[in-house]
Amino acid sequence: MKSMKTLQKEIKLVEKMIKKDVAIETTIKNLYDHIFKSNGKKIRARLNLISSSLNRNKNKNFRIKLAAIIELLHTATLVHDDVVDDSSIRRGKKSVNNIWSNAHGVLIGDYIYSKAFIYMVDIGNQQILQELSNATNDISQGELIQLDAINNKEITLNKLKKISYFKTGRLFEASAKTGALLAGANRKCIENISKCAKNIGILFQIKDDLLDYSSNSKTGKPQFQDLKEGKITYPFFYAYKNANNKEKKTLIDSLGNKKVSTFKILKLIARLDGINKTKKLAKQFHKNAIICANEIDNIEVQREMIELTNTALNREK
Amino acid sequence: MKSMKTLQKEIKLVEKMIKKDVAIETTIKNLYDHIFKSNGKKIRARLNLISSSLNRNKNKNFRIKLAAIIELLHTATLVHDDVVDDSSIRRGKKSVNNIWSNAHGVLIGDYIYSKAFIYMVDIGNQQILQELSNATNDISQGELIQLDAINNKEITLNKLKKISYFKTGRLFEASAKTGALLAGANRKCIENISKCAKNIGILFQIKDDLLDYSSNSKTGKPQFQDLKEGKITYPFFYAYKNANNKEKKTLIDSLGNKKVSTFKILKLIARLDGINKTKKLAKQFHKNAIICANEIDNIEVQREMIELTNTALNREK
Repeated sequence: MKSMKTLQKEIKLVEKMIKKDVAIETTIKNLYDHIFKSNGKKIRARLNLISSSLNRNKNKNFRIKLAAIIELLHTATLVHDDVVDDSSIRRGKKSVNNIWSNAHGVLIGDYIYSKAFIYMVDIGNQQILQELSNATNDISQGELIQLDAINNKEITLNKLKKISYFKTGRLFEASAKTGALLAGANRKCIENISKCAKNIGILFQIKDDLLDYSSNSKTGKPQFQDLKEGKITYPFFYAYKNANNKEKKTLIDSLGNKKVSTFKILKLIARLDGINKTKKLAKQFHKNAIICANEIDNIEVQREMIELTNTALNREK
Repeated sequence: MKSMKTLQKEIKLVEKMIKKDVAIETTIKNLYDHIFKSNGKKIRARLNLISSSLNRNKNKNFRIKLAAIIELLHTATLVHDDVVDDSSIRRGKKSVNNIWSNAHGVLIGDYIYSKAFIYMVDIGNQQILQELSNATNDISQGELIQLDAINNKEITLNKLKKISYFKTGRLFEASAKTGALLAGANRKCIENISKCAKNIGILFQIKDDLLDYSSNSKTGKPQFQDLKEGKITYPFFYAYKNANNKEKKTLIDSLGNKKVSTFKILKLIARLDGINKTKKLAKQFHKNAIICANEIDNIEVQREMIELTNTALNREK
């Protein structure tokens, strides 16, 4: 597992690059330190490094920087999401909006976004700039569509999939695509790895939705958050479709209800097949990702992508 | 005044370009329409067009697009500012966070930011990308520094000037600089017009601070907003420096006090020379801007810049 060790080292370099870029102003420094103190899983940066390892010798100096960009973009969306969702906890620690204020969350999010753009411009690759600016726009669209879907029990499966793609799959896709672009991969290879990553991203989101309904969460996030925020995700969606009128009423009453009996609702959603059907959907995207991964010629990268796909399916946090 | 008419036509094209770029999703479309329904003064877009008119034949196709980018960036900061300041009114109309929610304000702001970056990448000029990504980062820094300075009566004049530069002057500067870069102007000319614009921007902000303390406002914004939000701006700063202990207490008590007697405070601040000294400061930046404008070789552009400088000083809204 030599390549695994190399990847681990590279992730450390990404963390170092982000942390050393400190602003002079005290508040900005404090906010920045707090946000990057807790190291997340960095699955997107990892994915990007795997993809750019298609050719480790090409644009060598920019590989770490590109992964840092991905991590910065992702972090900016998280900071803004916490304002949007009024979340008090992030990665097991208090959120920016909780310790400071919503205003700080909005502005430090903008700061991190624009920092990512400064890095991108440094790399100076037109196609990478194109992909990342489009992805950033799509992510905000995904979040807006989701916001609009709150309490909408008529939401369709297609809309749910679009949300999962835009808000999560899109950055996974861009991480892989820009990595492959940096490595100078051929068109077919870029297509395969991007498509694989898109499926991993959607799978990752489905798993996230499942973990929110799990009774034993290690995620570092509060549980049943989606339900309490009135967000309809896959488990609720499938259960609602199978529910009779009385059960539908129970489900609707639980939406956006912060005092809901989560034990009762979890039991109901499980009985109405919401959990199983969501697991099935996750397996479908897992399968799609594996099919795409198998098309990747570079065996080392193929292996890493398959491992990432399995991790996304089996993760408990 | 042939060139004035041309500029007016170009501004219309900028508005058209922004408005025609409509998203498919209804919410996004509605938010976007609301935000761009009320046409602001577009002083930054105008400045950018004046600057790029240094050579109307170079990069002709991108002149309107670049001005649209400037306007999009500015609008994104306004939408986020309204969330940060919890403002209910913008350009005489209800703000996004007022009609929809803070969450919508954060996300549509991100949407508009990333749209601006997509346009920037289309232009594909490395120096323009550099200037605009840096400016965006500086603006967020300016806003954060200002947020941190709330209720800080020990704030220095230098810090106030830094805030005016970062949150306002910086985008004026970038508007002029990127326009000149697009026109392929020489180094000296880029320097002159950028410095002139920076001074106009700071002057614009000082005037904004003054208008907030004016008793007859046509700004479309509520008055004494800065004071009520606990923001120390120039009029308050100068008055506080001249105040005796009793007056200092009155001033401090008014900071962040939404029910303050604005008539009484305005009288006190005027008596303590806060208004006059701020007017003097504005004149200083007006003078700086004129000196730089006079250095611009292109007589047409020089004239437009001088006119813009005078408008910034004399505006009543």
